[in-house]
Amino acid sequence: MTTPEELISSLKWRYATKSFDPARKIPDKEWAALEESLVLTPSSFGLQPWKFLVVQDQAIREQLVPHSWGQRQVADCSHLVVMTVKQNLSTADVDAFVQRNVDVRGGSVEALKGYRDMMEGFRAKAETEGWLQQWAKLQAYIALGQLMAAAALLRIDACPMEGFVPAKFDEILNLNAEGLTTAVLCPLGYRSDTDKYAALPKVRFDRETVIEWR
Amino acid sequence: MTTPEELISSLKWRYATKSFDPARKIPDKEWAALEESLVLTPSSFGLQPWKFLVVQDQAIREQLVPHSWGQRQVADCSHLVVMTVKQNLSTADVDAFVQRNVDVRGGSVEALKGYRDMMEGFRAKAETEGWLQQWAKLQAYIALGQLMAAAALLRIDACPMEGFVPAKFDEILNLNAEGLTTAVLCPLGYRSDTDKYAALPKVRFDRETVIEWR
Repeated sequence: MTTPEELISSLKWRYATKSFDPARKIPDKEWAALEESLVLTPSSFGLQPWKFLVVQDQAIREQLVPHSWGQRQVADCSHLVVMTVKQNLSTADVDAFVQRNVDVRGGSVEALKGYRDMMEGFRAKAETEGWLQQWAKLQAYIALGQLMAAAALLRIDACPMEGFVPAKFDEILNLNAEGLTTAVLCPLGYRSDTDKYAALPKVRFDRETVIEWR
Repeated sequence: MTTPEELISSLKWRYATKSFDPARKIPDKEWAALEESLVLTPSSFGLQPWKFLVVQDQAIREQLVPHSWGQRQVADCSHLVVMTVKQNLSTADVDAFVQRNVDVRGGSVEALKGYRDMMEGFRAKAETEGWLQQWAKLQAYIALGQLMAAAALLRIDACPMEGFVPAKFDEILNLNAEGLTTAVLCPLGYRSDTDKYAALPKVRFDRETVIEWR
């Protein structure tokens, strides 16, 4: 259990790291915890419409820099997480999740038919109405939020990044062949001593502006 | 600082709470930390295109239940967070954020003109192309991910909920008048002793399925 003070101190410590120290790597134990936090991320219905790529090949990372608005974080971080989602979550994906339920909790696929049909109905509606991939992206942002908080608690730096060209990432990482597309990036590692952004006060609207009791 | 073990133990402890104990309320100190974690949530450009409603009026909560697929969590939780986003983030919103930068960090609006124009260019493009509200919703899901992780670390239960009728929520909470719309819900509190879902193993795909090194 964490104290409220420790939680807030961690969230205040974090910032969108502009410059990573390329020499500092996340230790194995801490990285394993971050990977597990990705695996444990909650998602709507539990469907987990994602794959998280950890891009460690330096040549690939350098290829990604010009398609990341030139931001060096993708090359200089310790671990680069590329959050991808399924372009078209399929009926087979729903059935794979139902099977996973049975594998983990026991029971039978037949007993879960009502649950399965409800999820498939949702999926089919989203596909027909054209917002299935967008829904998958929303789920990826839950993973992003949880990952950034998890990293901060471990005093590991991160930089959430929307500033990149998804089509180029998909091409370089050969994602179309897997039916995936890039949703958002999260380089992780340790801030450089020279990153002046680390010392700047955090800019947030005040509590009264963003929170309202009803 | 939190240990990797504590982080993972917290994330494993959490689950989508199906039944809250209506008699148990989150203590003030813990609630204040959760509110602060909402305020501190990172967002793209830092624009914070949201307002978080904490709906505590029991009559309003009961009105929301039928529009939440009958799920009692919205009425029985300790604190109901309704995450709303701006329907159309405006140029004035961008300028308010720039002003907030100046208030917090000093300097002048004039010195931030390049930064302001970059953000406004992004906003205007999103508006023209019709994905501005969807982008705002993505940011709300970062808040959802961080809030669920924060709650778990404090051993407070939560239930992320997409199963509701946004138009009805907007109507009951009078959000259209404020230019807001409901993105996602997060009731928080303490699990009921009778919630059988608390004891079920978590269903996640295995590490090899959702994580891939490149």
